[in-house]
Amino acid sequence: MFKVNDNYLKLKGSYLFSAIAKKVAAYQAENPDRSIIRLGIGDVTQPLAPAIIEALHKAVDEMADAATFHGYAPDLGYEFLRSAIAKNDYADRGCDIAADEIFVSDGAKCDSGNIQEIFSTDCKIAVCDPVYPVYVDTNVMAGRTGVFDEKTEMWSDVIYMPCTAENNFAPELPGQTPDLIYLCFPNNPTGSTITKDQLQVWVDYANKAGAVIIYDAAYEAYISEDNVPHTIFECEGARTCAIELKSFSKNAGFTGTRLGYTVIPKDLKCGDVMLHSLWARRHGTKYNGAPYIVQKAGEAVYSDAGKQQLKGQVAYYMNNAKTIMTGLKEAGYTVSGGVNAPYIWLKTPEKMNSWEFFDYLLKEANVVGTPGSGFGPSGEGYFRLTAFGSYENTVAALERIKAL
Amino acid sequence: MFKVNDNYLKLKGSYLFSAIAKKVAAYQAENPDRSIIRLGIGDVTQPLAPAIIEALHKAVDEMADAATFHGYAPDLGYEFLRSAIAKNDYADRGCDIAADEIFVSDGAKCDSGNIQEIFSTDCKIAVCDPVYPVYVDTNVMAGRTGVFDEKTEMWSDVIYMPCTAENNFAPELPGQTPDLIYLCFPNNPTGSTITKDQLQVWVDYANKAGAVIIYDAAYEAYISEDNVPHTIFECEGARTCAIELKSFSKNAGFTGTRLGYTVIPKDLKCGDVMLHSLWARRHGTKYNGAPYIVQKAGEAVYSDAGKQQLKGQVAYYMNNAKTIMTGLKEAGYTVSGGVNAPYIWLKTPEKMNSWEFFDYLLKEANVVGTPGSGFGPSGEGYFRLTAFGSYENTVAALERIKAL
Repeated sequence: MFKVNDNYLKLKGSYLFSAIAKKVAAYQAENPDRSIIRLGIGDVTQPLAPAIIEALHKAVDEMADAATFHGYAPDLGYEFLRSAIAKNDYADRGCDIAADEIFVSDGAKCDSGNIQEIFSTDCKIAVCDPVYPVYVDTNVMAGRTGVFDEKTEMWSDVIYMPCTAENNFAPELPGQTPDLIYLCFPNNPTGSTITKDQLQVWVDYANKAGAVIIYDAAYEAYISEDNVPHTIFECEGARTCAIELKSFSKNAGFTGTRLGYTVIPKDLKCGDVMLHSLWARRHGTKYNGAPYIVQKAGEAVYSDAGKQQLKGQVAYYMNNAKTIMTGLKEAGYTVSGGVNAPYIWLKTPEKMNSWEFFDYLLKEANVVGTPGSGFGPSGEGYFRLTAFGSYENTVAALERIKAL
Repeated sequence: MFKVNDNYLKLKGSYLFSAIAKKVAAYQAENPDRSIIRLGIGDVTQPLAPAIIEALHKAVDEMADAATFHGYAPDLGYEFLRSAIAKNDYADRGCDIAADEIFVSDGAKCDSGNIQEIFSTDCKIAVCDPVYPVYVDTNVMAGRTGVFDEKTEMWSDVIYMPCTAENNFAPELPGQTPDLIYLCFPNNPTGSTITKDQLQVWVDYANKAGAVIIYDAAYEAYISEDNVPHTIFECEGARTCAIELKSFSKNAGFTGTRLGYTVIPKDLKCGDVMLHSLWARRHGTKYNGAPYIVQKAGEAVYSDAGKQQLKGQVAYYMNNAKTIMTGLKEAGYTVSGGVNAPYIWLKTPEKMNSWEFFDYLLKEANVVGTPGSGFGPSGEGYFRLTAFGSYENTVAALERIKAL
């Protein structure tokens, strides 16, 4: 008789955002007349930029003609896109990343979930707490996390690096030595970030400890301050210890269009084995490339028109962030984030935990956010709001919150 | 110090089709004046049908307007697509599959590689020999296959079910009891298939043995004979033992557009655990949906216009299959397949093994095929040609082969 992967049974019933979606759907069904404003999941609301739409239409037309039709994509992604990424995201920033060190994919969520596969199940992971749930859940599925303690809400074999108001939501080097370190800056969910000097400390630590940093830079486009690194490859020595994950979801509104990439430098090795080769083998065997039309859309993100239009889109969302920050402060909340990231991290009012505040906000203001405890035990007592709504909805949500 | 997943190191350097692509590229570089005809990888060449192009343009326009923009897709896929699948591919064939038992994905290759994750690493797999390499390679990566014997080219913990001329390329029930049985009909690579009665024997066997059949029906659209099942759910009892994988690549030319789906009936359980729940958890955690525009394209596949246009496309390729079959027979080759599938399986000429014939055909006729031994030891002495080229190229390739 066949058996299932019983690591799956250790997981809570559903992924955080699926659980929230169900809760909101149930409330809406009971209260069909209420207009709910969603500032929970980090989903964008602005349409794709004109340069991207134009590239999509053009690529669709190519697919209509046998002479310009595109079948299976090259394993690593089309050269036109990988070159654009290498130039704009790395060379132009003085970083040494070659086009063939870039693996195009259908998004950073998939990559951040799949990347653990190329490592031994013995590897010990370190994560920030709170943290994007995918890093932990996918390691649970792989059997890398030990036993879950219902009381502390922690896995026995995971190294947690608390990010709290005390350390300005920046993790400290772990006491125990990890094999894999997940870092995400600007951070989801706290909206905080660290400076280039601070990131250099992590790179030096990883190289010394023989650890790999899995660096999620999905929110890089929202950086507004000068001393914040746009990529881990700005740090010296990152080529021997870091994998970088990037997404087109937040800088270009691709949450429903799906595109991302992962950088694995060829210098990143375990003995003689290049991690690059293992990921290439995985890509070739389990994946068949992002759609041609979507890769052409990705190329347009790096065109002059695309860049300019997307700068406006980021500014639009960051204006929302400012609106949320200001409004919450006026309403007496303690807030952080929102300066280099589209997320605002607020302390829940006294005597309310994260889920209580979620219910309170949903019922009393019809506003959906994300309970901080959903991201890990140190997220308890916090709450995440995103700046990805429309400006009108953002203003309306804040008015409702202020009126509570 | 971190360690890698050393199961990856047990694999041959690269995925079969990546290896072939490199070999062909090297030959082309050395012989830039030669016009190579590619009948190797099963990649389509006809453009997307007009109904699909129209749906894509319309969906792209929706993405350009905030009022109709689509962000993250629902976990399982859009209802409009899942309903169209449930109706057309199942209800209309008298099969009992609900829309919420269908998981939309970016293709059957990914799904066929990922599906093993929800099973215990103790599970023993059975595969046809020859077989689509993804089934085996992904189980190697998961550590489920034991040791590779260089001599026999077999993994110690895999049950091989030889498909040879002797059994008409139809596998026999395995002697040893497997937990997971991979079946693909119409078959890749042999192009053969089995009848509904024959498939019923497998379903009965799986239910009795407590095994799960992972049924790859990617080539279903090419079935031309009456007694061949279009889905495993035509068989009684399949709801308690079968998972079905489907692709839009071959019936609708989506190799570069990427869309597929997996069906897991809610009756398929291990004790109390529904495999449906585990796959839903995986989808929710490691995947973020196929692009909205691609799901709209998938919907158009089921429109009246789409159906009619694609019928023509399938007929076009099957005419190629006939051309290949006839041409090869005229040239004295022993051939099979090509009636219910776009693949032709030919015996290599005496004293030439599969790779020798590959090299011979590449150099002497500038035609690329796939060596049968790349699909497993029983594929040795065979060679696969696909009907997915253009008619002109197919005719030209056969003329070159006949002239050898």
